[in-house]
Parts: sequence; C-alpha cells; structure tokens
Amino acid sequence: MFGVCYYPEHWPEKMWADDAAEMKKLGIEWVRIGDFSWSRIEPIAGQYDFAWMDRAIDTLAEAGLKIIICTPTATPPKWLIDLHPDILPVDIKTGQTRGFGSRRHYDFSSDIYVEAAMKITEVMVKRYGTNHKVSGWQTDNEIGCHDTTQSGSANAKAKFQVWLKNKYKTIEALNEAWGTVFWSMEYNDFEQVELPLYGVTEMGLSHQLDYRRFSSDMAIAFHDKMVNTIREHCKNQFVTHNMIPMCDTQIDNFKLTKDLDFVAYDSYPLGRNAEVLNPSSFEHMRTGHPDLNAYFIEQTRGLSPTGRFWIMEQQPGVVNWANYNPMPAKGMVRLWTWEAFAHGAECVSFFRWRQLPFGQEQMHAGIKMVNNQPSLFYNEIAATISEVAKHPELLSAKVDNKVALVTGTENQWFCEIETQSTLYKHLQTEFQYYRVLQQLGIGVDFIDETSDISQYQLIICPASIAPSDDFCKKVTSTNAHFVLGPRFASKTKNLHLPHNMPPGVFAEQLGYTVMTADTTPVSHQHNIHYNGKTYTSHTWRDIIQLHHNSPLKITAKIEGLKKAAMLQNDRFTVITSLTDDKFLVDVFKEIAAKLDLPLNETFGDIRFKQKGNYLFVLNYSNQPYQLDCFESEQYVLGSKLIPAHDLAIIKTSEFEEQL
Amino acid sequence: MFGVCYYPEHWPEKMWADDAAEMKKLGIEWVRIGDFSWSRIEPIAGQYDFAWMDRAIDTLAEAGLKIIICTPTATPPKWLIDLHPDILPVDIKTGQTRGFGSRRHYDFSSDIYVEAAMKITEVMVKRYGTNHKVSGWQTDNEIGCHDTTQSGSANAKAKFQVWLKNKYKTIEALNEAWGTVFWSMEYNDFEQVELPLYGVTEMGLSHQLDYRRFSSDMAIAFHDKMVNTIREHCKNQFVTHNMIPMCDTQIDNFKLTKDLDFVAYDSYPLGRNAEVLNPSSFEHMRTGHPDLNAYFIEQTRGLSPTGRFWIMEQQPGVVNWANYNPMPAKGMVRLWTWEAFAHGAECVSFFRWRQLPFGQEQMHAGIKMVNNQPSLFYNEIAATISEVAKHPELLSAKVDNKVALVTGTENQWFCEIETQSTLYKHLQTEFQYYRVLQQLGIGVDFIDETSDISQYQLIICPASIAPSDDFCKKVTSTNAHFVLGPRFASKTKNLHLPHNMPPGVFAEQLGYTVMTADTTPVSHQHNIHYNGKTYTSHTWRDIIQLHHNSPLKITAKIEGLKKAAMLQNDRFTVITSLTDDKFLVDVFKEIAAKLDLPLNETFGDIRFKQKGNYLFVLNYSNQPYQLDCFESEQYVLGSKLIPAHDLAIIKTSEFEEQL
Amino acid sequence: MFGVCYYPEHWPEKMWADDAAEMKKLGIEWVRIGDFSWSRIEPIAGQYDFAWMDRAIDTLAEAGLKIIICTPTATPPKWLIDLHPDILPVDIKTGQTRGFGSRRHYDFSSDIYVEAAMKITEVMVKRYGTNHKVSGWQTDNEIGCHDTTQSGSANAKAKFQVWLKNKYKTIEALNEAWGTVFWSMEYNDFEQVELPLYGVTEMGLSHQLDYRRFSSDMAIAFHDKMVNTIREHCKNQFVTHNMIPMCDTQIDNFKLTKDLDFVAYDSYPLGRNAEVLNPSSFEHMRTGHPDLNAYFIEQTRGLSPTGRFWIMEQQPGVVNWANYNPMPAKGMVRLWTWEAFAHGAECVSFFRWRQLPFGQEQMHAGIKMVNNQPSLFYNEIAATISEVAKHPELLSAKVDNKVALVTGTENQWFCEIETQSTLYKHLQTEFQYYRVLQQLGIGVDFIDETSDISQYQLIICPASIAPSDDFCKKVTSTNAHFVLGPRFASKTKNLHLPHNMPPGVFAEQLGYTVMTADTTPVSHQHNIHYNGKTYTSHTWRDIIQLHHNSPLKITAKIEGLKKAAMLQNDRFTVITSLTDDKFLVDVFKEIAAKLDLPLNETFGDIRFKQKGNYLFVLNYSNQPYQLDCFESEQYVLGSKLIPAHDLAIIKTSEFEEQL
Repeated sequence: MFGVCYYPEHWPEKMWADDAAEMKKLGIEWVRIGDFSWSRIEPIAGQYDFAWMDRAIDTLAEAGLKIIICTPTATPPKWLIDLHPDILPVDIKTGQTRGFGSRRHYDFSSDIYVEAAMKITEVMVKRYGTNHKVSGWQTDNEIGCHDTTQSGSANAKAKFQVWLKNKYKTIEALNEAWGTVFWSMEYNDFEQVELPLYGVTEMGLSHQLDYRRFSSDMAIAFHDKMVNTIREHCKNQFVTHNMIPMCDTQIDNFKLTKDLDFVAYDSYPLGRNAEVLNPSSFEHMRTGHPDLNAYFIEQTRGLSPTGRFWIMEQQPGVVNWANYNPMPAKGMVRLWTWEAFAHGAECVSFFRWRQLPFGQEQMHAGIKMVNNQPSLFYNEIAATISEVAKHPELLSAKVDNKVALVTGTENQWFCEIETQSTLYKHLQTEFQYYRVLQQLGIGVDFIDETSDISQYQLIICPASIAPSDDFCKKVTSTNAHFVLGPRFASKTKNLHLPHNMPPGVFAEQLGYTVMTADTTPVSHQHNIHYNGKTYTSHTWRDIIQLHHNSPLKITAKIEGLKKAAMLQNDRFTVITSLTDDKFLVDVFKEIAAKLDLPLNETFGDIRFKQKGNYLFVLNYSNQPYQLDCFESEQYVLGSKLIPAHDLAIIKTSEFEEQL
Repeated sequence: MFGVCYYPEHWPEKMWADDAAEMKKLGIEWVRIGDFSWSRIEPIAGQYDFAWMDRAIDTLAEAGLKIIICTPTATPPKWLIDLHPDILPVDIKTGQTRGFGSRRHYDFSSDIYVEAAMKITEVMVKRYGTNHKVSGWQTDNEIGCHDTTQSGSANAKAKFQVWLKNKYKTIEALNEAWGTVFWSMEYNDFEQVELPLYGVTEMGLSHQLDYRRFSSDMAIAFHDKMVNTIREHCKNQFVTHNMIPMCDTQIDNFKLTKDLDFVAYDSYPLGRNAEVLNPSSFEHMRTGHPDLNAYFIEQTRGLSPTGRFWIMEQQPGVVNWANYNPMPAKGMVRLWTWEAFAHGAECVSFFRWRQLPFGQEQMHAGIKMVNNQPSLFYNEIAATISEVAKHPELLSAKVDNKVALVTGTENQWFCEIETQSTLYKHLQTEFQYYRVLQQLGIGVDFIDETSDISQYQLIICPASIAPSDDFCKKVTSTNAHFVLGPRFASKTKNLHLPHNMPPGVFAEQLGYTVMTADTTPVSHQHNIHYNGKTYTSHTWRDIIQLHHNSPLKITAKIEGLKKAAMLQNDRFTVITSLTDDKFLVDVFKEIAAKLDLPLNETFGDIRFKQKGNYLFVLNYSNQPYQLDCFESEQYVLGSKLIPAHDLAIIKTSEFEEQL
Repeated sequence: MFGVCYYPEHWPEKMWADDAAEMKKLGIEWVRIGDFSWSRIEPIAGQYDFAWMDRAIDTLAEAGLKIIICTPTATPPKWLIDLHPDILPVDIKTGQTRGFGSRRHYDFSSDIYVEAAMKITEVMVKRYGTNHKVSGWQTDNEIGCHDTTQSGSANAKAKFQVWLKNKYKTIEALNEAWGTVFWSMEYNDFEQVELPLYGVTEMGLSHQLDYRRFSSDMAIAFHDKMVNTIREHCKNQFVTHNMIPMCDTQIDNFKLTKDLDFVAYDSYPLGRNAEVLNPSSFEHMRTGHPDLNAYFIEQTRGLSPTGRFWIMEQQPGVVNWANYNPMPAKGMVRLWTWEAFAHGAECVSFFRWRQLPFGQEQMHAGIKMVNNQPSLFYNEIAATISEVAKHPELLSAKVDNKVALVTGTENQWFCEIETQSTLYKHLQTEFQYYRVLQQLGIGVDFIDETSDISQYQLIICPASIAPSDDFCKKVTSTNAHFVLGPRFASKTKNLHLPHNMPPGVFAEQLGYTVMTADTTPVSHQHNIHYNGKTYTSHTWRDIIQLHHNSPLKITAKIEGLKKAAMLQNDRFTVITSLTDDKFLVDVFKEIAAKLDLPLNETFGDIRFKQKGNYLFVLNYSNQPYQLDCFESEQYVLGSKLIPAHDLAIIKTSEFEEQL
C-alpha cells in the first residue's frame, strides 16, 4: 500500500480535487493530513474552524482516498504560548528558554500544555472519530525530535520531585539508590532534589539516569493520554505514531509505542546517512549506507506491539535538513521502497505530495514540484507503485527470523551517562552487530529484555548494560545461543557496579569477573588472535578474570595484554571488546554453522533479505551485480543481472544456502 | 595623499608638537583624531572638556596638518551605561547581555543611546563644524564590527514589531509573506512576533531574513541620523566612515554609505588573511593572498556613492587581533600602499602613529614604537610616502572597468539563512569569481542590482539569489554578457521559492527550470567536461531541466549526473555548480575573447592592475619576476626585473594585450 | 612511607576493622579520611554527628595506622546551599549559576560560605586537634579544580571592587594602571568596575589580569583562614593540601602553599597524559609521558615552603575522569611510586582503598575491588611497599640540584590573556624546557622569582613575562648562567609594554630591544642555523634589534628573517623563539659543558634521576634496556638489564658521567 502526506491548508482550495484525483491515479490509497495545522483549526483561543478540514476530507474521500488525521500538537500556536509562556521548554545545555518560531516548542512537564493538547485532540476526535472517511490517527509528530524530551524548566523540576517521591517513597531510599553519600550529595527531602544540570563537574550518575527516565516517562504519559483520548471517542480507527530513529528520541521507545495499533517510521536514508555516518560513508552519499536505513526500519518493526508497521514519511528526492543534502541516485527511491516492504512494511507513504515554496522545508522535495509539475522522481515513484501493485504476495509474505538482537533505550542512556570513554558510542556498537548480520544475510528481530524469546535460536546482546534478573532467568530457561558484547551486565539498574563486579547476576552462569574496563583512543589498538587469523580490538576492553570453575573457555586472546578477547561454550559467546567487523563476521559465521542457521554472505553493497518464501537481492552499489544461482523462472522481479541501484526478487520454496 | 591615526589623549601633551612636526616631515597631510575619546570629552554626564582637543587641533594644524574628527560613539563611557543599562546589546547566540569593557557595547535599538550619540555628535560638530582646521568627519568607528548589528534585547524586539508593522501594515500580509501557515507559526497581531532566536529547531526563513533587514535598518538609521546631525552644523567639511569588509557588517552596505562624501576602508591584509583563508593560505602569511585585500578594497570603492574612497587605517606592521599575527614581509607595506592607489584610493592613512604600551591593542604596531623610536617599517613607510609624492599622475589616473560583479548583502543573508548546505559560503563563492578575474588581469567594479550598468560589457552574478524584477528588466535592456552562478534567482525577496521554480522571473529569458539543488560534501565531487578538458564540480549543483524552446545550449556537462554544468548563448553564461578555479579561468578567457576584453593572464602571485594609462604589476611572490615586454622608457616605477614583494608601474597609451 | 585514602562512611561499619588490619599488613602507615563527608558530619544545620568518625578513627588507630583528617569543605551539603543559594559560583563563560550535584560548588567570594567552612573546620579541629591518633590535616580538596577559582557572581563583583580599592586607593591610580583611556574605559568610581566578562570583544588586559589576581587572592584567603583555624586549635599535627597541577588551579600556587607544613600532589599519570598531551602521545598511553608526571611532581616540590612533599593520591589502576582511561602497563604503578621517591616524596598514598560501586568515580580503581577482592594491581602495590621498606636509605637521600627553572602562575596568566598568538601555550613551553633537561639527565628545581637562587649554577626562565625589579637585581648579583626564553621581560606587572620596549628593566644588562613579536601558524616555520646544524623556529619569535654596545653576541640566526634566534655571552643565553626540542638539547649540552654540570643524555624512554648518592634509572619503554656501566655491586635495586616498565637503582659515591 502507498500513501502520501498532504497539507490542504498550504494550497488554494481549488487545487484539492485535482491533487486528490492525481494521487488516486498514481495508485496512492492513503493521505495523511492535519499535522502542524493547529493555527488553522483554532486560530484564536476556543474558536475552532473545521470547515476547511471538513471540505478537505470530503474532497480526498470523494477521490477514493483513505484518510489519517494527525493531532496538531507538535506546533502549539502563538496565542497559546503567549497565554502560558511556561509551555516553552528550557534548553538543558544552556538554561535558555527555547522560543516559539519552529516546532516542538513545548514541555512535557507543563500541565497546562498537556491539558491544551488533550483538549484539541478531544475536539478533533469528537468531530472525526466516527467519520468513516477517516481511517486512523497519528499522534502528534516525531515525538522527541530536536532534543525536546528533556527540559530544564521549573515545571520539570517540580514534576521530577513528584516522580522521585513516587518511585522511592522515602528520601533514604533515594539516597541509597543514588549513592549520595559520595561527595555529600545526600538529601533530607525530595524538595531538595534539583535537575542534574549545570553542575561544576560530572553530576551523580544515578541522578542523571533517573532524570532521563523521568523525562521519558513524561513524554510517554503525554502520548498515552493522547492515545486514550483518541480511543475514547473514535470507532474503527487505528492509532499510530511516526517515529524518528530510536537513538534520537531519549524516550523508552518500547514503552512509548505499547498502546499503538502499529508503529510508523519516517524514512530519510540520505539525511540520516549524512548525520550518523558522516563523513566516513561518502561512497553512499546518494544511496545511504546499505544497512543504516534497514537498521532503523527493523528497529521500528521491533517496537511495534503487533509487529505491523508503516513507513509514514518516505524521502522522495532531496531533503533539506542535513548539513548537506545530496540528490538520491536514480533508482534509489524505488529500492528504498521495496526494501521497506522486504522488512515487512504494510504501507509506504511519501513525504510530501508537493514541495512547498515557503517555510523551513521549502527545499524538501515532494512528488510534485512547487509549480505543480512532476518532480525528478515522479516517474520512478509512479512506476514503483504500479510495480508493487502487481505483487500482493510480496507484501503479504511474513518476516520470520530466528535471530534476535536485544536493544533498549536504557542501554543507550547508561553509555551516554558513564563517560569512562567518550569514544564508545552505543549506536555505533549496536549498528556494527546489525551490519555484520546483514552482510551475512542473517535476518534479525530487534527485541527488548522483556520480549518473548522462545522463537529464537541466536540472541545477541551488543550492549546490554544492566540486564534484569528476569532476563537472567530467561537466558537460563532457553537453549538459544547468546552473544554478549562488551559491558554486558556491567551495571545495576541504578547505574552502580554490581556488588560482585560485572557480570553481576550472570557471574555464576558465565564464570568470570570483569576486573576493570580498559578504554583507549582509536590510535591505540591491540591485535586479537583467533583461529589463526588476526583482528583488531579497539576503544573498550573488559579485562576478564576467568573463574577456575568457569563453564567458558577462552577462544581468542588480546595480544600484549594476554587477556581474553572471547569466551565461549555451547550456550554463550562473550566478546570482551570492540573489534573490527571482520572479527564479528568470522565469529558469527562459525556460530551460524553450529546452529544450522542459513546464511548468505555478501560482499560490498549487495544485500540479501529473506521474507517468507521470497529472497530480495538489493544492489546498493553503482555497478551491476551478477547472481550465479537460482533458475530464471524463480525470478519474481528482475533477473540474474541486477543493475546498479536495482533489485531482484526470487521465489525460494524455503531459504536455501546456495550462493 | 597620506594620513595617520593619532590619539593625543593617549600621550603627554608635551609630545604633541614633536609628533606633529615629524608627521609633517614624513609627508603626512591628514590626521584622524577623536575616535573612542568620549570619556575624555565628557568625563561626567553633561560636563564637557574640549580644552585638550582644542589644543591638540591647534598643535596639529600649526604643523600644517589637516584634521578629521571622529565621533566617539563606538565607546559610550561607563557613567552612561550605568545610567541606562539597556544601552547594552544582547548576544543573539546566548541571550547574555554583552558587557562594558571593550567597545561597540551599544544597541542600535536603544532610543536612549541613539539620543545620547546624537547629542555628543551635535555638541562636537557645533564646536568644530566651522573650524577651518578641521576638514572632515568620520562617523563612529567600524560600524557592525564584532557582530554588533544584531541584538536580542527587549528594545530590539519592540522596534522589530514596529518595523514589521510599517512594512506589512496588516498581520495577514506578514503571515502571507512569511508563509506562517507552515508549522502553525501564524500570528494574530504584530505584538506576538518575537525575535527569531533560541528556537527549538530552524526558525522561519523569512522571519530570519526580516530580522536581518530590520537590524541593518536600525544601524543605517543610526548612521543616517549622525550624518545628518553633522551636516546640519558643519561647513565645508566632508563626512566619511571607516568600513570593515562588507561580509562582516551584517548591514546593507550600499544603503549604509549612500549619504557619505566618500567611503573609507580599514585595510589589514594579514589579519584578514588569517581569518578568511586560514589555514589554506599559509604561503601568503606575510603578504596576504594577492587578491583578498584587493577584493575588500574594490568592494569599498563600489560602495562609495561618488566612487571616491580612502584607506582610513592601513596596517603598518604586526597587528594584534587575529589568532596569530605574522610580521609582514619586507616591502609589503609599500606594496599594499601602491595597490590601494592602483585601485583608486585618494589617501592612505596609517593606523597608528605610535604603538601604545597599554590597552587591548598594545601589540599593534605603529609607525613609531612605544619608546618613540622608529618601528621596523618606519623607513619603508617614509620611502613610500616620498616615492608616491613624485607621481601625482598615478594618483589622479582613473579606474575605468568594463566588467562588473553584482554583489549585495542580501545575497549573503539568503545563503547564511538557507542551510541547504552548510558548506556553501557566500564569501568564498564571490571571492572565487573575483580571484579568477584578477588572475586574468580583468579589472572589475562591484555594483549592486540597482546600479547603472550601461558602461559594462560583462556583468557577473556569482550569487544573485533573488534579483528583482527591475534587475530582470535591466538585463533585458542591455547588450552586455551576463555570467550567472549557481543559485541565481532561486528565491523571491521573501526567501520563498519562485512559484514557477528557479530562475523565477528569468525563466522565460533563460529557458530552463532548476528542478532541485544537489548539495554534497567536499569529498564527493563530479567531473565537468568542457572543451575536451576535465574540471571539478563540488558542493552545490543546480539540477537543470532545459525547456524545449530554450535560447541556451548546454556547453558543459556534469559526469555521472548527465546534467548541465553550463548553459550558454551570446547573452548569457549560466554556471550551475561550484567548480574549481580552472574551469572559471577557461570560461572567462573564452568570454573575454568573444567580447574583445583585454586580458593579462598571470601565473602564481603576480597581478596586473590597469589604472587609466598605467599598468601596475605587483609581485606578491617571494621570487623576482621578469617582465618580457614593454620598453624600458615606459617604466614609471621599477624595471623589467621586479624583486620579490615589489612592483613596477608602466605607462601604456592604452591597455595592450602583449604579455 | 605509604598511605591510603579511605572513606569509612562509604562502607558498612563491620568492614572497618578488617580493612584497617589489611592496610597495616600491607605496610601502609597513613590513612586519609573525611574529605567530602560533610553531609555525614552535619546532616542537618547545626546538628553534628561525629560518633561514626570517632569509631572510625579508633578502629584505624587500633590497627596501628596514623590518621590524616580532611576538612570536608569541597562539598557543602544541600541544606546549606538551600539556606544560602548565593554560595553557588557562576560560570564565567556563560553567566549560568553552577548547580549543586557534584563538588566544589562554592564561591570563594561568598562570605557566608567562608564563614560556614571555617565553622565546620573549627568544630572538627576542636574535636580532633589534640587527639593523638590524628597526625595531621588536609585542607579542603584540590582547590581550584574544575575551574572553580573564578566566579562571575554578584559576590565576586562586590569583592573585586573592594579588592581594587585596597590595591589602588584612588580610581585615578586604577585608570592609570589599566590604561583605561584606551577605548574610553575610564572609571569615576570603584563601584563602576565590573568583572571582565561577556564583553563585546576583548576586555582590558590589565582588567583581566587583576581579576585573575583577585580570584586567586580570594582562594588563598579562604585557604589561609582555614590553615589558621586548624593551627589555632590543633597540637602537634601537620597541615597540608593535596594539589592538582599548577597549571590547572588559576591560583598563585606559591602563595597558596606558603603556610603549609608540606605540600601534597595528586598523581594521576595516565589521566593527565590523556588530557595534556592528547593525542600526540598515544605511545605513552599505558605509562604516561616519561616527563609529564615528573614535571608536575617536581613543580609540587618547588611549591613546598619546606621542600617536603607527599603524593597524597596515587593512581592505583584505571581512573575514570579522562576522555578515555587506559589500564596502566604492568609495572607502572611500581615505577611511578619509585619515581615519586626519586624526586623526594616522603610518602605515597594510594587513592583509594576500595573501588566504590556507586557515585561519579565508580570506575576508578582501588587497591581492592568492589567485591573486596584484590584489584589487578594489588600484588604489584604490595610488592612495591615491601620493596621500598627495605631501602630507607633511598627515601632519606636528598635531592640536590644545581639547576633551577623559574615558574609562576602569573606567567601563565600573561600568556592566556594576551592573545597575540592563540597557538603559544605556556604549559607546553615550560614543559618543553623541563623535558629537554630530563632527557639530558639534568636535575632541576622549580622556583619562583622570589626564591633564593644562590645554590644554582644555571637558571632557566622559559617564560618569565614580567620579571620584577628585584629579580633583575638578583640576576645581577649572582654568577649563575641564565637561559631566557621568548617573551622574556616583555611586559610590566600591569600587563603593559615596558616604556622602553622589552626586555624592559633588563634592556641595559642584555643590550637589545624586541621590536615586535612575530607569531605564525604551525604550518609556517623557519629554519635556525646554529653550529652548522639546522633546527626549527615556530609559533613565536621576538624580533630583536641588538644595541651597538650589547654585551651579547648573536650565536644562531633565523633563516629568511635574518634575525637572531639566540644571543649569548658567559652570563646569558637568550632564545628568541619557540624551537624544536633538538635545538634546546644541543644548546643545553653546550651550556652544561661550560658550567661543568654533569649530564646523562638518554634516548627514547629511559630516564636518569640522581638523588644524593643514588642514581635511579627508569625504563618507561616497552623494551628492556641494557646499562653498560656501573659495577654489579653498585646495584641497590635491579641489574644491568632493566626490563620494560622497570627500574634500577645504583649507588654512586657521587654523580658520575660515565654513560
């Protein structure tokens, strides 16, 4: 299915019907409207104007389009800010109030704003919640974007104190949990506790962690309240939210999405590529790194309580918000689209219908240009839509993975807060494990510690810093193989060292102690020797002392330090340091062989993605790629010679290891 | 003519007469005094002390020197700040009030300050406006320096609202002009509009643009008021202002200077070189880049409503304010001086007479040292002054160019505000075009869109982002050839995309549409093929779709993208991307040939500058340069062998293409 | 002697006795307690709880340990901050109040805090000042750490005005001393003077300097008051303070320590290495640069009014506070310990006894781990303690140097404030001279201008910016040879240029004038020619004009500039620019030869340190080192083959030049 983001309020009403007809003709089924439209819906406090929206909905529906309405709460209008200036959030780096004039200028800790946002939501859902032309709702827009989850406001401080009191009940419990006896940080009362900002030097680690949890909870409470408000008044309409990458929200993403019908992702491969991998990946300037967008998409699928997900915003050409914004290579909009479907997307919705001549995003391409002519990628998009329409079997096929990667925002927080090495980056670590699995053609599900793991043969924890006791029990109760990266179980949930040192509750099961962390600059690497080959250890090393009765054996060593680089047995592979990709590739190949996991190792920029009985072969490179296997009649799409930036889809009765 | 900046208040009165006598003996005619002297003129509110200034003027005049008085308004004294703390400006990056203790600590939006500045101006001009020893006035000092044009103060906000109301009359007009329907930024009243500061993410582009225009207008209003105050009370005295480079003022420079008798430039080749070109130009550490100071000087000539200009402050040795401050190469003070005259300067005034042992500029050289001994460059300066005195014909010769380069601060603002690529730098782009022209020996005038263009054969728009309808008509009405750089006509005056996409009003004339901008990092370049040679396209590309009936032909292509790098016909050369210098050199050589424009291509660090019947040959390199043309008798200065950091001046009946 | 830092309040009381017994068994004599314990001593305003401390002292003393108590004033508790919020300091870069939640969150200018700190000190010293189990006191903790010497508070402003009035008596004197006539910065009254913060551009240099002196004086007054409070009530107890490196305090360190019995240094070789030398010294990642820790240790010895000093905190493994924190190489904890003794330390006290599982320093190693097991370096520490115990003669031997290096915080301030070159770094300059001397095996004492210099044959001033008249006289009165680096005597004490230009009061003695400073980027170097070899001049050059009657001769020249790189006679060596190490090595070798100073030139990472009749040979490299001299029977420790990261100690009847 395909959709598009449309802003009727940006265009003369006389254009609406033609726009709707053209969308329909293109094969688009869904139109998302309403985000950021508050000043048109309620131009003055309490005076609503839904006439234009009614007409827009009618016009779109008449053309046969299904409608998703967004609550407009990402952009409270100026009159509301002027009535209640403390809606504005406060920058936690500078203490400066963040002003009106862009978007997301609200503080989740402002009761007044929460109330105002629920009011406009309620008014809208009362109006459209039973309108059969409206099929679903999107809450707000990209919650957490632009570092807006945390605020340094007086509201945040007051709410934080209440949150702490709810959590700890007594101040003694907080003092214990935070270890405030260190540096005389002890409190006598919850009202003494401030936000952990603007300190002379590093603030209490547990204090920082609870502030992140609190801020996340505020955002989630806001969102839950909105979901509930919608559900209370709507009928047969779904509720979703358009997510930015997990790593950018500073919210416990699994908690945020738990009440949604499905989750949606805003897919901007080139902008993200420029931001996350800059400048190392300039070879993927016009395609994105072959694994980065997939990484974010599959994370989003993992977040979905139902496994269902959409691409709510798909880059349709050049965007405007990265430091530089290259034109996609010809073919890439089609390739990204197919890739989203390969990973299980139900719908790909392009952002936006028509490029807008004004506003901050005026350089962001649409399917159509400002002058209402087709954009550079119009034809590619049109062809992709009709091509996909011919293959409903590819959309309905199920993603079914035997491998899981354990993620979770708390891990990111632990790594960001504990500055033992400023060079260790949680995102880069987790992405490395994912990237290596993709290069091996191993499909992976992102799960969190609380997920059901019974379906998986291989479970990977690239950076599980403080796994719970429950997770520990779960590990014991399965027969899956676990791969545990550096820093595994190195902290308690309060961001303390375990009293028995890492790996804490896993010490008995794993039979070793982490004596210290050894963190070094990029220029200072050690060799790893494994199976007669040499690899690289860098940035972070857990220095291990093996217990005499350990169930694990050292299978790789760090040169110079004479310490374990890897410990293994049938159930566990413990990798003690950050390494080069090659090491992980070779380790996972051996593990996959032992577990009889099929793999399709690839080289360069080709990727294999299995979806049910279909194998998607994506060519991210700028060279054609020749497939030397599969019979011609197996090709559902494409052929043995895959042009640059193109793909083939092959029907396999089951996944076969034949490449 | 020569001048010097002198601060009698810094020295014991008994030194004045000797100083004056020595200046006169050196050949200096002009002395500038009074800037920054407010605390000596009015040490306490309302109590004036002009006795010392009277005596200083008398002493200087008695020695035969002509005097320029500066208004002292760049440094309001502490008592004034304490009486009216809201004179202080507010830092727009941090919201912090900028304190007293250096200079330019005032806000153009402070009515109280404007009044105070006009009062002290009036008092001074009433005292000296008819004193025949005083020949002219300099307003304030380096207006706009140290990022002082924009302020985040409450005064600025209030004035901005008034300015907007004057401009737009109705809030609906503002909403339309800014496109505030995007992101619900709509206003109901002018009083709701804030300064575009401290936003959550990018602020409205039109909002930012109008704030820059407003801030510029505030500075201009202040300056206009001061010029008028002076003119009201003076007789037979000129009014000028000492400008910093256009790119550093954040003021519409053409508007700022429109009422002056002539414009002056403060020429610091080494400091500017370190700031603008650092670190790429270390080979020009002790000379400055051969084109950079010329670029700023010729811009200043362009700003002058009369074409007349001075160098009001000339670097006489080491300065103090760049990150590092090298000693000029021997000969360079002379070379810079001659170069200023080559470009049409009427007077070169050195800053400063004597190095001061205290204060922020104590490491800034003077003609004399702290101990009243000659500085390192004293002899060079003395020799230059007497050398110049022998050649009045070289000073009176006229600069007469057939080529114009269209500039204007609004272009800079468009490029700074629209962050489509943070790597595109307006200054670097414009300077590249200028640099290439200098390397070809093609003299150029800086003009703005409103200038008379009838005298020019070739008109270059390196970065004319939003040319007006009037300019469009002007283009049609001449026969000149136009060279249009990337981003040409890409925006409306409101910083919107044209409704017909770029090049907007020029679409019909030029016959193409810019489909999108393609912006890439430095590491990602494309080849350009042109005339059998290969060049480089980088950073910014306008992706062109040629209309079937376009008058232009594609004459160069971008490899890999199969898009036009250049479109041409007899009237126009459209260059769609940033390129290497070589490309521009070869393109301009062809154009010059077609237009019969004489050129003198140079290599390395030699520069040719034609002034009337005289050709100045400047050797910026550290090697001698042998000229193989011109008869010995043609040499007005120097000879065929030009030593390093030296020059020759040749009399040519007319410009000859003989090199 | 050995000590350890212990925090009884961090551990269950039942562990104390075992801890004490184990310390004693290890050979530890001293235990430092109490720092940061305020919230346990006075949990509520005015309610003291010393019971736990009494018991801790008793327990430790019973085990035979001697106790040092720290005043807990580095961490005022929250209740005190809430009662008096203006205790908090204000960030001088941002104007933001620095919050509670870490340490050192107090402003030396807060009278209320000074009073509160003296009160808690008095209460403690009254309780323990005559307790024979307590042997000494440490004041506060690492005064000046985390940029806490300067504050932008209202308190600081008010105190600064008083300080200025005390210093200058009349505002006219201040105006004269600061040169405020420049830029109309003149004041009519002390109450007009603000802190030199948040200016539009560079603030007055003398103003900045006095602000640093004032801030330093505030810290010193606080510390003096505390020392006096302790001495008033204690009997037979010493007072010391644990210093961070001189360069990090922003305090006049000699003044700060003048009243102590001895000075202590907190020795963290790897963290400092990462901070100061990053990234150039990654080869010393696990050892520290062979000279950097010695540099800080010997500076600390220099600061001691008695010459006695301790290492109060010795890194015992990995630390937590640098950007990355590598594990020390095996052997380095022992090597650092011996090195401290080689430089004259009386006691080495490890920080900390046991790693703490919570708080900001939880990743900082202890001698024991969180789980009370021995840490990675436990055995090395134990062996070192018993090894040292066998050699009391090595501890009691005296350091006796004939070479002094003149240092002083004011020099650092001059260099930081005067931004003539942002590339000139005072620390790097001084460290270079020290490093070169160490490479030559020349022992050096750090002294300040006021020190007695009669014992020294060679006195080095790497960066004496404003030597006093007294120092000038002292120079005249000795026969020592002086080496004077660039910028020598370039300023007056007010940060003005001398009226006769540099070297000011030394002009007659030295017979030259510095005409200007020539400052260049790293990319722009000149060759120096000296004794037929070629060296490098970089970053800063004093451009010299030799007087016709100068006693000095030019002995090295700067290529290209034809200026002196070095001027010499029997009494003086003037080095006019920053150079490479090689130049200094060769210059010092010649000087040492002339002065009959013994030297032991080393290569790579071997260092020779003479202490009385003992020669310590330290091998910082990761390769064994073969000593080809000394008889086997001379080896007090080790042998001719010194393993990597190991040492040998040789008994020499006197220092012999035999290597």
